[in-house]
Amino acid sequence: MRPTMKDVASAAGVALKTVSRVVNDEPGVHPATAERVRTAIDRLGYSRNESARVLRRGTTATIGLVIEDVADPFYSGLSRAVEDVVIEHGCLLLSGSSGEEPGRERELVETFCARRVDGLIVVPAGADHTYLRSELETGTPVVFADRPPGAGIDVDTVLTDNVGGAGQAVRHLLGHGHRRIAFLGDDPAIFTAAARLHGYREALGGLFDERLVSMRSPSPEAVRADLTGMFALDDPPTALFTGNGRYTVTTLRALAGRRVALVGFDDFELADLLDPGVSVVAQDPSWMGRVAAELLFRRLRGDGGPPEHIQLPVRLIARGSGELLL
Amino acid sequence: MRPTMKDVASAAGVALKTVSRVVNDEPGVHPATAERVRTAIDRLGYSRNESARVLRRGTTATIGLVIEDVADPFYSGLSRAVEDVVIEHGCLLLSGSSGEEPGRERELVETFCARRVDGLIVVPAGADHTYLRSELETGTPVVFADRPPGAGIDVDTVLTDNVGGAGQAVRHLLGHGHRRIAFLGDDPAIFTAAARLHGYREALGGLFDERLVSMRSPSPEAVRADLTGMFALDDPPTALFTGNGRYTVTTLRALAGRRVALVGFDDFELADLLDPGVSVVAQDPSWMGRVAAELLFRRLRGDGGPPEHIQLPVRLIARGSGELLL
Repeated sequence: MRPTMKDVASAAGVALKTVSRVVNDEPGVHPATAERVRTAIDRLGYSRNESARVLRRGTTATIGLVIEDVADPFYSGLSRAVEDVVIEHGCLLLSGSSGEEPGRERELVETFCARRVDGLIVVPAGADHTYLRSELETGTPVVFADRPPGAGIDVDTVLTDNVGGAGQAVRHLLGHGHRRIAFLGDDPAIFTAAARLHGYREALGGLFDERLVSMRSPSPEAVRADLTGMFALDDPPTALFTGNGRYTVTTLRALAGRRVALVGFDDFELADLLDPGVSVVAQDPSWMGRVAAELLFRRLRGDGGPPEHIQLPVRLIARGSGELLL
Repeated sequence: MRPTMKDVASAAGVALKTVSRVVNDEPGVHPATAERVRTAIDRLGYSRNESARVLRRGTTATIGLVIEDVADPFYSGLSRAVEDVVIEHGCLLLSGSSGEEPGRERELVETFCARRVDGLIVVPAGADHTYLRSELETGTPVVFADRPPGAGIDVDTVLTDNVGGAGQAVRHLLGHGHRRIAFLGDDPAIFTAAARLHGYREALGGLFDERLVSMRSPSPEAVRADLTGMFALDDPPTALFTGNGRYTVTTLRALAGRRVALVGFDDFELADLLDPGVSVVAQDPSWMGRVAAELLFRRLRGDGGPPEHIQLPVRLIARGSGELLL
């Protein structure tokens, strides 16, 4: 990894702005502080990113980000990482949540474009992005993250290996002797939910039973009702695969201590402090944000190659809940 | 609570935009859907907020929000609530994180102003806000949330009762027999951290012992080192008061199962699922966001009264960790 301006700031124990002042020969830095910054620059081998200056000339130096919901830790982690990269490039981030409403996604994108952002990162809510065509034709780079754009739009994407990750979770539970593995997840109209269902189904093969699938609202009532229904079956589930962080937490609460094996998609804070610790297939939202933002800045620096489709792997973290034997 | 356009949308099972189209007599809604929306409007007694139309005319219909860190659940909860109110008013939210850097706060505010936002909500990182004066003179309303502005700037503020909340936490622990109560919190240069220290100290009175106070980085290493030091004292702490959600989680992890009473400032997801459940004095970040945003829109509708200073109470939630007896 190349050292960033932020690394220099931490190493020298100063604010990012101070490093930026030293690097750009701006006034207002105490000579001793400037010396400390220069020492850190030499030691880390930092070299100024010239693109930041290019970007600052003749552009608005702002990037727009549309996510689904800032109150969801996955998206706030992604946002924070995007913002860090944007700041490192001397730019500013404008962001907004679509709340899973296609109309709001479009409204945000159009407002950002009207304000002439230099580039856009979009976690789409809708399935039709033809409205972006004219903006793409003017040369504004757009990267889709977490979910791809609708048909007819070919742009850079940074997605998670949802199918593979779900398969990993299910095979882990199969490996611990489970044959009745339920899936609780989001509405399959959502790209990631559909992909995880696909991976779950594929890994289960002939063991798939649609009565063990609940894909609807993550409300506590809905999850509790569906679990109650499943546990009342003649052959109830002995293991659960939960389709995202929200489902995992809601499910844990609904289980109220009932001992059942569980692997969740997405890691979450405190998963290690619960008893048993919660096993997960972890995405890294910061990584996704960083990769998407760096790809966007590569485009802004003039990389005109064909659209790239990056798929990030997930990592199974075994903490106890997924290792309960049948 | 007055029903909002969002309530109508949920009741009718349609998107917010659809309700907005019906309310504003815009085309593109199926007659049967429009009928369902009108029925919901009548049933809930919803009346259109005229301010939204006024706001839309001759203004940019955007609001700027500066927070500390979007990856912190307190601020992402606040953001989401602000965004909901902004959307209800037919406007759009632009937001950014200062990362606790005064320079970045100022840069964000100035960029938002240059883009002519109609109003601003700021969680300040810095202590000097004289740079806002010219913008305030042009009539742009600004509400400070979570922390007040620096000297010389008198604007609307929405703060938490930090002193009272810390006092509540400490008195709760005193009530369970503890006399050696430690405090782990943020740098006292941060307004909320200083206020919580003040409340802690005041409630402890003669029992205050500066060796039981650790106020620095919330890094796991720092927290672990300071706890180790305190537990090595001749009269070690038997109870802990942690100054915010991050400190609570970091402290729980550092305690690694060691049985010590604990009350944290700020509630957090899963606090109820840990063993023992974690007792907290809970702020409501959504409430703070909503109150700040509603105050801002009141100003935008022309309320020119003197600055208001709203203080929101906190609520002690006993879940077990704070009730461990000496």
